[in-house]
Amino acid sequence: MNRVVRIHEHGGPEVLRLEDLELGPPGAGEVRVRIEAIGLNRSEAAFRAGHYPLKPALPSRIGYEAAGVIEALGAGVERFANGDRVCVLPIFRMGEYGVYADAAIVPWRSILPAPPALSVTEAASIWMQYLTALAIIEIAHATVGDYIVIRAASSSVGIAALQLANWAGAVPIATTRHSTKSRRLLDEGAAYVIATEESDLVSEVMKITANKGARIVFDPVGGPYVETLAQAMAQDGVLLIYGGLSGQPTLHPHWPAAFKNLSIRGWVASTIWSSPDRFARAQELILRGLAQRHLRPVIAKIFPLEAIIDAHRYLESNAQVGKIIVTP
Amino acid sequence: MNRVVRIHEHGGPEVLRLEDLELGPPGAGEVRVRIEAIGLNRSEAAFRAGHYPLKPALPSRIGYEAAGVIEALGAGVERFANGDRVCVLPIFRMGEYGVYADAAIVPWRSILPAPPALSVTEAASIWMQYLTALAIIEIAHATVGDYIVIRAASSSVGIAALQLANWAGAVPIATTRHSTKSRRLLDEGAAYVIATEESDLVSEVMKITANKGARIVFDPVGGPYVETLAQAMAQDGVLLIYGGLSGQPTLHPHWPAAFKNLSIRGWVASTIWSSPDRFARAQELILRGLAQRHLRPVIAKIFPLEAIIDAHRYLESNAQVGKIIVTP
Repeated sequence: MNRVVRIHEHGGPEVLRLEDLELGPPGAGEVRVRIEAIGLNRSEAAFRAGHYPLKPALPSRIGYEAAGVIEALGAGVERFANGDRVCVLPIFRMGEYGVYADAAIVPWRSILPAPPALSVTEAASIWMQYLTALAIIEIAHATVGDYIVIRAASSSVGIAALQLANWAGAVPIATTRHSTKSRRLLDEGAAYVIATEESDLVSEVMKITANKGARIVFDPVGGPYVETLAQAMAQDGVLLIYGGLSGQPTLHPHWPAAFKNLSIRGWVASTIWSSPDRFARAQELILRGLAQRHLRPVIAKIFPLEAIIDAHRYLESNAQVGKIIVTP
Repeated sequence: MNRVVRIHEHGGPEVLRLEDLELGPPGAGEVRVRIEAIGLNRSEAAFRAGHYPLKPALPSRIGYEAAGVIEALGAGVERFANGDRVCVLPIFRMGEYGVYADAAIVPWRSILPAPPALSVTEAASIWMQYLTALAIIEIAHATVGDYIVIRAASSSVGIAALQLANWAGAVPIATTRHSTKSRRLLDEGAAYVIATEESDLVSEVMKITANKGARIVFDPVGGPYVETLAQAMAQDGVLLIYGGLSGQPTLHPHWPAAFKNLSIRGWVASTIWSSPDRFARAQELILRGLAQRHLRPVIAKIFPLEAIIDAHRYLESNAQVGKIIVTP
């Protein structure tokens, strides 16, 4: 028997149920992985709550990202063997598979070798955060001298974007709601921190950028504040909206977009793995960044699997700096 | 004395007042133009109504685009002489100058020679419509085989976009609210017409594009229908929003933008003339298109200056196909 988290209904963290289930052997093209660490993502909270565009059949498994050891191989699996330590990426439909468990069956095409220099906790944290933050490189072509406003910078993706921005020679401007996290964000690589509930973002960004505005904004929150973000942007800027955490509608920032010729882009990390060439390039780049210490996984807190409900509460509290990990 | 239209308050077409005013001589860097034809633009209706981002001191002149003959030169004007027939472009702040009049003083940097092969009515119609529609080339790089959804295709800019799309080898899909204009839009170059209040845009576009969706959407209306437009788009598409005629908020189309990697762009024609190189290239291209008959000005209706109120009512009626002209 295995311990597996499922949801039987959509709702708050309390709908996450830890259950005993028989996993059975992996099918063709699948592997069974003994899970050692699970990385949490905000999209899983949206999926749990029923706010994700994919609605699963209930009860549904849940969980996107993990690290562990292969314990069984289905037919047709190539390049992997029992005992290999691997990372699981969500190269499947949310709910079709799920890694909140002590073991999980997943498609072999969704696993990568775990980087040997990383702890298993770190290995469970890297792919979603760096592949998501890679939008600032892949879409916005962040480069030397670019000012990049990184909203919700203390999230795992926010920290990843700070690191990528610095690697690219750009100037990351972190935003956070309150100045309580400012010191920490500076330590993690922010060149500037703006506490959005304590100061005026537009005038702060204009001060920092000599009235040019930021060329790139990277935002997982959306909502009415996007208009303010757009006002803080430079001519020909790129506004990346990669989430809707505010839960409020995001209005298209009509006049700044028109007069400043802004490009407003959505983004999901699956854009990268949908293209084999792009995915190969991204893997090479992230592994090189990790090896060269440009990229350094930051773990906010580790919860045991029994405390999955607390882990989701913490995920939604916005108290964290970095990645939340759950260990079976 | 000259006859000049001004607004003393914001409101409906009836706030346009035809008044007798003494224009006086042009100042340094200005010319006085005897106006022969005025081209109407929807942004002037927004300016009149008080919905434009620039709020003028009242009373304010109004009017962006015209053709006429130079009758006086201010100091420092180069390359033009009295008697030259010219086009006036809105390379000034709306309200600072205004061409709804039988004569107007304008900055000499806002005039271009009138193309000699065109009638004066046509000369008053070309620049705003083609410079605005040029977004499909300049921003979206429309090319052979691209499907382009052109919303409100019977507007002057819509017709201009149909013509530019055909010139680029692309496939223009015109949208209009009712099928009453369908035949006319096919005659003006639409490859397909979708009457949005009579059929389902997404399924029609998917049928036309073999389920790929349109690579480009060109929309002056905005509002809730933008979500539908985004659903009809192809992977990596470009959604150009160049106006907000619906008067309703435009929501950022979050999921299609993210999953299809859409680029959502604002656009104003002034983007082109803000860059001398870009403006020179655009002029050359538009004049070449006119000479080769890829671009053919379409005049919807001509009103006398005394009927400026009726002309604005017609502008806002959406009954027109092509450009509305007013003649003093």
